[in-house]
Amino acid sequence: MKEKKALKKSLRFLMSERTKELPVSIFEQLFEAAKTRPGVISLGPGEPDFVTPDYILDALKERLHEATHYSTPGGRPELKEVIAKKLSRENKIKVNDPEKELIVTTGSTEALLLAFMSIADVTEEVLVPNPSFLAYTPMIELIDCQSTSIPLHEETGFQLDLDEARKRITPKTTGIVLNSPANPTGTVFKKKALEEVAELAVEHDLMVLSDEAYEHFVFGDAKHKSIASLNGMHEYVISFYSFSKSYAMPGFRVGYAVGPEWVIKDMTGIHMYSTLCAPTPSQVAAFEAMNNKKESDASIKLMKEAYDERRKYLLERIKGIDGLHVKVAPEGAFYIFPRFDFKMTSREFALWVLDKANAVVIPGTEFGHNGEGFIRLSYATALPEIEEAMNRIEEALNKAKLKKRKE
Amino acid sequence: MKEKKALKKSLRFLMSERTKELPVSIFEQLFEAAKTRPGVISLGPGEPDFVTPDYILDALKERLHEATHYSTPGGRPELKEVIAKKLSRENKIKVNDPEKELIVTTGSTEALLLAFMSIADVTEEVLVPNPSFLAYTPMIELIDCQSTSIPLHEETGFQLDLDEARKRITPKTTGIVLNSPANPTGTVFKKKALEEVAELAVEHDLMVLSDEAYEHFVFGDAKHKSIASLNGMHEYVISFYSFSKSYAMPGFRVGYAVGPEWVIKDMTGIHMYSTLCAPTPSQVAAFEAMNNKKESDASIKLMKEAYDERRKYLLERIKGIDGLHVKVAPEGAFYIFPRFDFKMTSREFALWVLDKANAVVIPGTEFGHNGEGFIRLSYATALPEIEEAMNRIEEALNKAKLKKRKE
Repeated sequence: MKEKKALKKSLRFLMSERTKELPVSIFEQLFEAAKTRPGVISLGPGEPDFVTPDYILDALKERLHEATHYSTPGGRPELKEVIAKKLSRENKIKVNDPEKELIVTTGSTEALLLAFMSIADVTEEVLVPNPSFLAYTPMIELIDCQSTSIPLHEETGFQLDLDEARKRITPKTTGIVLNSPANPTGTVFKKKALEEVAELAVEHDLMVLSDEAYEHFVFGDAKHKSIASLNGMHEYVISFYSFSKSYAMPGFRVGYAVGPEWVIKDMTGIHMYSTLCAPTPSQVAAFEAMNNKKESDASIKLMKEAYDERRKYLLERIKGIDGLHVKVAPEGAFYIFPRFDFKMTSREFALWVLDKANAVVIPGTEFGHNGEGFIRLSYATALPEIEEAMNRIEEALNKAKLKKRKE
Repeated sequence: MKEKKALKKSLRFLMSERTKELPVSIFEQLFEAAKTRPGVISLGPGEPDFVTPDYILDALKERLHEATHYSTPGGRPELKEVIAKKLSRENKIKVNDPEKELIVTTGSTEALLLAFMSIADVTEEVLVPNPSFLAYTPMIELIDCQSTSIPLHEETGFQLDLDEARKRITPKTTGIVLNSPANPTGTVFKKKALEEVAELAVEHDLMVLSDEAYEHFVFGDAKHKSIASLNGMHEYVISFYSFSKSYAMPGFRVGYAVGPEWVIKDMTGIHMYSTLCAPTPSQVAAFEAMNNKKESDASIKLMKEAYDERRKYLLERIKGIDGLHVKVAPEGAFYIFPRFDFKMTSREFALWVLDKANAVVIPGTEFGHNGEGFIRLSYATALPEIEEAMNRIEEALNKAKLKKRKE
């Protein structure tokens, strides 16, 4: 209960604890800088630099008139049908009844929030890798549940350490978040790691929340594998996917989740009280994006090749810069998460880079306290810009001769 | 904490209490019937029967290419600018800085959820009229707060009874929901009622959450008045608006809220963890809808006249049907909320109407327990269909000679 002490002409004291406890992010400050500083180059973005392919926009224009009303809370049937086929074909996840096992949401972020609401009550706990996508923990805390960190280690290329996870399980733990390919580390989890998570889930009765938003962007020999496709895992996993990355349509806000009937029913019930349904024009665009397999395969391939080229380039450049290190090359998503040797916090270093190199990088600590000592570079930016940003960072570092931690 | 008792191959026992406690609505069942029963006529819809005007769709098509990326969490600046002008002109709400006092959301439903999260912590209380829009109470309960009913009475045309409200305020009460024009009753709150709510809010330090989604649909001599425009109320009120009704664009999912800086900042912070931003193409459509004042005035006028004609027709018809009563003619939104005399619950009567008259009406209890004895008829349906539905209902009632409560 809040102490009701009226400030002059403001009810600010009514502000909930849940919002007071939200992390104070410098993301916005950095993105603001990225927009307003002359000549700044941003390696910050968490969204593709590509514009939505024309075949999608053109098809939507044709059908806009039929897309102005609400859809059912679970999503348009035509879209759910085509998603079910994709899940079976690409993810080896069998959907018996798309109506009951799938929900289309306003971005996969919303699906995650609905899922947390569905499996956790006040004070219950969800295991979350640290560092990881910056929204998991605040979402869990917003609904007054507890996020328990599983520390990830650079030495293993930020693979999940199941012993660490196991130690942190209590009778109140109801779920574990998995994110592969991972933001911010670019890690693609090995099949063995997925099998271990599956074992852990079965052993402790945990729902696995598998965020696979970057599923299409894995490079080299790495393969994306959906944990829900492992034997016997159907009832244990909610898998989350997004149209934002695969089809370069983040502004449309369409994602989806597949899982056991009871949880999808719950999430659909809650959907009535968050956004009612995913935006209908966006659902039509999403259907057109996925249904045209030839066009979608081609555009995904094109983006994947571009990302891979940039990834390789960035890895080379980082190797050549004294004081920046990548221990294990990232194999997925569109991020690189190098350690830096300088005697600064991640925030200080990111602000230093902005100041001295006029480039935006994201402090590792935005993704959890275990991100201290790291920065995230996104390569969802055109190669010439990446090149220029790295030139500037290298020059600035050469000039400044920053004090190193070990000196 | 849940008792972990494994069902065979299902983790259903992990289902949260918050979702278990969601009301079991028959809304979906009725809408399903509305779609699948041959010849059924629905007086159920909570959305306009009109399609989004062409001037909006055409303008969006032109600009679709620039709308594929995320917007900032608060919404696109051009949209916030035009909203600020509209608020000043139509609602007499002065916005000093649209960037800080406005948030654009994925429908006004989402804005309400963000606002509840922002002003209430676990076990805190919000006053909610009963009956009212069916999402308020579940939203509040989903985040483990408490919804306290203010009973509305037929005798006064479901005006707010402030004595009833005052009695229910405790030290844990942080807000009061106001909805005028009201769903499901069609009530437009008098200026005096708004002044009394304002007094109550100041006296008890309550945030007023004023849902004005139906602002443009008030009839006869009634006037829509925004409580935030009352002297000294700026810091006490969050006002919620929607593009869904005024511009017949529910599928686009765009709404907005205006309020004191601290609460809008909070809501924008939480927005990152619900849907990140309202869908960008929808924001462009919303801008085009509102910015073209000539077209928008014309299309709102057209819809308003159509609704008013249907409202008058429905009132006449209800007068002529033995066993249905409207004590005070509704003056706004697109609903009529008649009492029925028959010895049935609202649910039973709605199902009876579906069965015998092949027409969908919504049981009053979907809007709170005080809706018992009432049904909601929507007139967001073309007049010939309303006429046919009322013919069928009248005939079915004449034929059946249902037992009345007072007999």
